[in-house]
Amino acid sequence: MKIVKGLPSTSQDDYQLNITTLIRHAARNFGGQEIVTKMPDRLFRYTYEDAYERIKRLANTLEGLEIKAGDRVGVLEWNTYRHYELFFGIPGTGAVLLQLNLRLAPSDLIYIINHAEAQLIFVDETLIPVAEAVAPELKTVKGYIIVTDKKLSDIETKLSPVYSYEDLLEKAKPEYNWSMLDERSVYAACYTTGTTGKPKGVYYSHRDVYMHTMQITIAFELTQRDCFLQMTPMFHAMGWGTPQAATLAGAKLLLPGRYTAQDMGPIIALMIQEKVTASDGAPAIWMPMLEHIRGVKEKPNLKGVQLICGASEPPIAMMKGFHELTGAEIVHSYGATETTPLITVNRAKPWLEDKLSQEEKWDLNRKQGLTLTGLDVKLVDPKGKELPQDGKSAGEVLVRGPWVTASYYNAPGTESQFSVDGYWRSGDIGTLDTEGYLKLTDRVKDVIKSGGEWISSVDMENEIMGHPGVLEATVVGVPHPKWEERPLPLVVLREESKGKVTKEDIIDHLGKRFAKWQLPDEVKFVDIIPKTSVGKFDKKVIRGQYKDVYMRE
Amino acid sequence: MKIVKGLPSTSQDDYQLNITTLIRHAARNFGGQEIVTKMPDRLFRYTYEDAYERIKRLANTLEGLEIKAGDRVGVLEWNTYRHYELFFGIPGTGAVLLQLNLRLAPSDLIYIINHAEAQLIFVDETLIPVAEAVAPELKTVKGYIIVTDKKLSDIETKLSPVYSYEDLLEKAKPEYNWSMLDERSVYAACYTTGTTGKPKGVYYSHRDVYMHTMQITIAFELTQRDCFLQMTPMFHAMGWGTPQAATLAGAKLLLPGRYTAQDMGPIIALMIQEKVTASDGAPAIWMPMLEHIRGVKEKPNLKGVQLICGASEPPIAMMKGFHELTGAEIVHSYGATETTPLITVNRAKPWLEDKLSQEEKWDLNRKQGLTLTGLDVKLVDPKGKELPQDGKSAGEVLVRGPWVTASYYNAPGTESQFSVDGYWRSGDIGTLDTEGYLKLTDRVKDVIKSGGEWISSVDMENEIMGHPGVLEATVVGVPHPKWEERPLPLVVLREESKGKVTKEDIIDHLGKRFAKWQLPDEVKFVDIIPKTSVGKFDKKVIRGQYKDVYMRE
Repeated sequence: MKIVKGLPSTSQDDYQLNITTLIRHAARNFGGQEIVTKMPDRLFRYTYEDAYERIKRLANTLEGLEIKAGDRVGVLEWNTYRHYELFFGIPGTGAVLLQLNLRLAPSDLIYIINHAEAQLIFVDETLIPVAEAVAPELKTVKGYIIVTDKKLSDIETKLSPVYSYEDLLEKAKPEYNWSMLDERSVYAACYTTGTTGKPKGVYYSHRDVYMHTMQITIAFELTQRDCFLQMTPMFHAMGWGTPQAATLAGAKLLLPGRYTAQDMGPIIALMIQEKVTASDGAPAIWMPMLEHIRGVKEKPNLKGVQLICGASEPPIAMMKGFHELTGAEIVHSYGATETTPLITVNRAKPWLEDKLSQEEKWDLNRKQGLTLTGLDVKLVDPKGKELPQDGKSAGEVLVRGPWVTASYYNAPGTESQFSVDGYWRSGDIGTLDTEGYLKLTDRVKDVIKSGGEWISSVDMENEIMGHPGVLEATVVGVPHPKWEERPLPLVVLREESKGKVTKEDIIDHLGKRFAKWQLPDEVKFVDIIPKTSVGKFDKKVIRGQYKDVYMRE
Repeated sequence: MKIVKGLPSTSQDDYQLNITTLIRHAARNFGGQEIVTKMPDRLFRYTYEDAYERIKRLANTLEGLEIKAGDRVGVLEWNTYRHYELFFGIPGTGAVLLQLNLRLAPSDLIYIINHAEAQLIFVDETLIPVAEAVAPELKTVKGYIIVTDKKLSDIETKLSPVYSYEDLLEKAKPEYNWSMLDERSVYAACYTTGTTGKPKGVYYSHRDVYMHTMQITIAFELTQRDCFLQMTPMFHAMGWGTPQAATLAGAKLLLPGRYTAQDMGPIIALMIQEKVTASDGAPAIWMPMLEHIRGVKEKPNLKGVQLICGASEPPIAMMKGFHELTGAEIVHSYGATETTPLITVNRAKPWLEDKLSQEEKWDLNRKQGLTLTGLDVKLVDPKGKELPQDGKSAGEVLVRGPWVTASYYNAPGTESQFSVDGYWRSGDIGTLDTEGYLKLTDRVKDVIKSGGEWISSVDMENEIMGHPGVLEATVVGVPHPKWEERPLPLVVLREESKGKVTKEDIIDHLGKRFAKWQLPDEVKFVDIIPKTSVGKFDKKVIRGQYKDVYMRE
């Protein structure tokens, strides 16, 4: 990318974008605003000002442990106020916040920690077994800091040496003189765990996260009057950047601690009690929440609440369900670990809304949305030729901008995922309409190639999930002797529909929107659909399990 | 400022922040949103998409006229859609948008244009006389582009050579391949015209304006559901950055064209008709608007409208007047040419509001507000020692951050206005309270030094303006043989109060809030108070006129 120089400015262009600025200024401007954490036995409440003092103590602690600028520091923790402190205290010293997905297989965790050469790991007391399972294989870690309310002497662990987070903070000075960090320095690192190959590291700069934070604050319209419930795990691409955005906006931050999708009642009660106005999560969270709500007599009033929904397309039934039962609106968004992560957010345009029918609005809501200002997107065909943005031409989505990664960290052989002109190749297939809305139709690797034509596995999934008897469904392409591939749906029925909804019902239902040649020949009813650690359908595993379905014919 | 380097990131840190991105992406995301201009004879309506096409034509035009990256291009224009186009088209090519205040004295305009070495000047047809008055003295200008609906042959002017803006755009190609500009390149230049010395140039980088745009979009909470009325002249520090912020937010933009403070009826009618939700301007605009509203029988309903009010403290009477008569809220803000310009915006904190009485809330609203996230502020005493932020200690306000200037352009001898540690010295005296609210008490040069103590000229002005018979008032310190200086108020009475309100009434009124030794000995009733070209009280002129008042005693 050639860069043209104009006249040098008189501005303070050397003032660096540092994420520490966000918490420094939140403590100054919104010091009294609350951060509330749901702990196992109580709600823990404190303020941005309180958090900031502990963050300064944390920075002193890290210096005391000889962590230097550029060093990597791992974190195994739930969504708590202490995790929030680590989000600022570690990178504020110039060190790298290495996010560790506590649900990964030990082999992946070992690979990531060793690849990142982490010096130190913060471990929640309840996650000590996870750390212990990998500790013997770790090559660079020189200590573990246990995050707990208990005394260190009451903790039993094979980890060594260990420190107590609270003891260290208590001993540390509450004042810290932040350095100004080169904005190109790494703020945090996150590893993608795709279905193929080794985990790949994305090492986000302070500049990257700062720009992302500002833009998503604008896109989500967060203000100090909001209460943001951080449902997305903070180890998933920095919790999608919303803890930082809440800090910039001065919003109240509500952290749910450890929770499971199976136990949504307490979360919903908390949303009502703390007056939540916005939250973010994957359908893997919102679907069980809606199921819970369907099952209770008194529906929670969530009018005006925006539930940001990322990772995959929210089924219309889910959007309608929340709207009708609670008043909450699902706001569809799209992103990836490689893009910090937000790429698009679905917002209805006031001047467009008047022209659309109710059904057209729902259809619009299903799209991935408008690309955030600051990011360039384009669609290309398999040969790399740019396609028109006409709402019809489907191509791979390419993205470029300040919060997009330019490479993976120390990962020779991955260069092909970046196009020659500076764009990241998302691996997603989509269309862009003339209003700028992106619609994903498939993954490059999941699209079903049948008789020289493409069938969108995602469109078919969504259509099936619109059937009233269906709880969850996925569609994969499996080998076929004549057509190369044919679609195969896997369907989980609702309890009350089991044994009643048939294969023919599903195919008839699909017949309303799909051409006859696109319809599946087979439907598999299952109790559970294999998923990846981040809750996506694991299509690689499914394709493996059913690879012979049509070959046997 | 020492900068510490951490680990180099994998992010696209080379992707430059260019203001062109804002209009490119507005055309993509909000293409159908309107920009409406009040022309002398009609409303001109078009969309961001339309604007973007003309901006591309403009960029081609500039290339055709051999304007290169770094060249300076002057603009003499009202708040119109064509001015908006110049805001993006000129800097998009890498050239510098040189803002020319059409109200300046010819000697200042000549100085600025020659100092900036402008190559080309865009001139509104109605401002040809302004350009003609300075043209013979200009050393580097090689042409004038007349902004008009008329044919060039119908325009009479001594300017030469001249071109027609519309002709050039019509002939130019509608496609333009934007270069990526080094973000430290100048976007626009603006000259401050203080009351002393030559005008001083602030040359804002793209990075500076981009960061400012993002932060004020957040601070003003602008969205695509807003309609923003651009009252602040676009030649005043880039119209305070709100044309760019509206573009980022996708807000409808309403441009009032040429208007005068004496004729507010049509502007108010437009606000109602176009459903304005936000606007910005100085008290020099809002005061006459409120006066107009006081005089009409049917009060306009402006409920929910935020009127951003900068440049000096809004009198409480004005805030209450708008609130009570129209429902609009005055949002006090503070800035300077040297800071792009926004430094603070006054927002009430929800968790604080419950604790305050109605009168305390009004008192809070009078403060300059909270420093925008991203800017550092501190208060220092005359020796440069930092003062506590206790709401009492008054010191000079120092500011640092990405949208603060580090120097004046080619201006030897002005270095003393920048402190050794990278802060700009505002010349304002203020306090910061424990909640972070800045309150200005005076200008360093205007504070009244009486018997070794300070009297705030601003506080006294505001107290006088709270008197029901007073339309406008200012207070200056004038020499006194015994006390060094003593306060002297100049008061403009309302028409109906003339001859009724006396000097003793004013002094009695002040006695409620000021100590006896602070009270003025004299009050001057005048018909008009001298003002600078930007509408501030010209205290230098006033002090000169009245320097003998107390010396004669």
